[in-house]
Amino acid sequence: MTKARRLLIVASKGTLDMAYPPLILAQIGAAMGLETGIFFTFWGLNIIRKDTVDKLKLSPVGNPALGMPNILGVIPGMTSLATSMMKKRIKSIGMAPIREMIKECKELGVKLYACSNTVELMGLKREQLLDEVDDIVGATTFLEMASEDAVVLFI
Amino acid sequence: MTKARRLLIVASKGTLDMAYPPLILAQIGAAMGLETGIFFTFWGLNIIRKDTVDKLKLSPVGNPALGMPNILGVIPGMTSLATSMMKKRIKSIGMAPIREMIKECKELGVKLYACSNTVELMGLKREQLLDEVDDIVGATTFLEMASEDAVVLFI
Amino acid sequence: MTKARRLLIVASKGTLDMAYPPLILAQIGAAMGLETGIFFTFWGLNIIRKDTVDKLKLSPVGNPALGMPNILGVIPGMTSLATSMMKKRIKSIGMAPIREMIKECKELGVKLYACSNTVELMGLKREQLLDEVDDIVGATTFLEMASEDAVVLFI
Repeated sequence: MTKARRLLIVASKGTLDMAYPPLILAQIGAAMGLETGIFFTFWGLNIIRKDTVDKLKLSPVGNPALGMPNILGVIPGMTSLATSMMKKRIKSIGMAPIREMIKECKELGVKLYACSNTVELMGLKREQLLDEVDDIVGATTFLEMASEDAVVLFI
Repeated sequence: MTKARRLLIVASKGTLDMAYPPLILAQIGAAMGLETGIFFTFWGLNIIRKDTVDKLKLSPVGNPALGMPNILGVIPGMTSLATSMMKKRIKSIGMAPIREMIKECKELGVKLYACSNTVELMGLKREQLLDEVDDIVGATTFLEMASEDAVVLFI
Repeated sequence: MTKARRLLIVASKGTLDMAYPPLILAQIGAAMGLETGIFFTFWGLNIIRKDTVDKLKLSPVGNPALGMPNILGVIPGMTSLATSMMKKRIKSIGMAPIREMIKECKELGVKLYACSNTVELMGLKREQLLDEVDDIVGATTFLEMASEDAVVLFI
């Protein structure tokens, strides 16, 4: 049996619900001793942008899993309502807000990478990203890391 | 060459269209002799909840691939219409409903795991999950399985 | 350390924004010398259908990351507006349209596979798919390729 020694997560979604899985898995992977990194790409960049990290939203539209008719989802304020309900629930079971999850990742040694192609596509500058971001790297660097004994999750 | 001996699928979506890929791939993986497991997390839990498994919906909103204008998607009943159209199509080519797909997975030896973090987040109890669920496990268990000669798919 | 020698990408989304990541990663993987393939399944088939490849859309609804209220997203024309804005941005940084990205993939030796289950589910014929598609294969073939020294990404 071969054992992976690295955990590499691609965070490609920019909604509150899909921001948690990469951060939770990265924390646990790092705590287990895996060399862990998160590669933020496309909408996932919102998780590490200073102007959006605290404003991630859960959308009630187009997510039938939430059990809300689409017509309600488009009423102004419904996305905010669903988001604040989820935030309360998250807090009530002792989970930290996204910004703190990122800090905890860093304390555990998780590396945070922003995808250079998407940074360029969105016209972002380094200073618009959280200080916790380690580097802006290309897909080549990502694939090199991914091809070396890694568990790779595209979220 | 090394050969993976395990297939580990994360099912994170709770829509009808995204419930099939994990179950189809798990069935085929198990039939090929791979040690196969599905880890249901976030909205994916809807696939193994007694109260939602038969009610999974396909949403026509926010899915431009369906070729339906968003304005139609929010008209009450459109999600149900798109869902029932897809169910008919699924049946017509001989594919089983989700509940039967789960039974077939079990017969082939696929292990079904519910993510303990999400179970807690949603305030669910064991008895609300399908009897077919083997265990409620944490992300640590998942990552341990994922790091041992596994093909890992996050769906 | 073991080195993956293969890159296998599952393209399961049919929106413009999620059509790029599989194609970009495949091009880079092939350029790095990895034996690279893309397996188009479910909505991802839209990327290799003659009638949809040039019409992929970005949806502003249900994507809070776009920062647009849902109520605006359902106004007829908003999806087209968001899509044309993204297309301009893509062009301005020198990225090619999807159809050209596919051609470039082929020139680099990337193999393009259509998922036979989905092709059947959608009632498609071979001639409705782009000529660049190498083969229509089942999930068994995909899993066999995935279990041999591969980096596997489900997008």
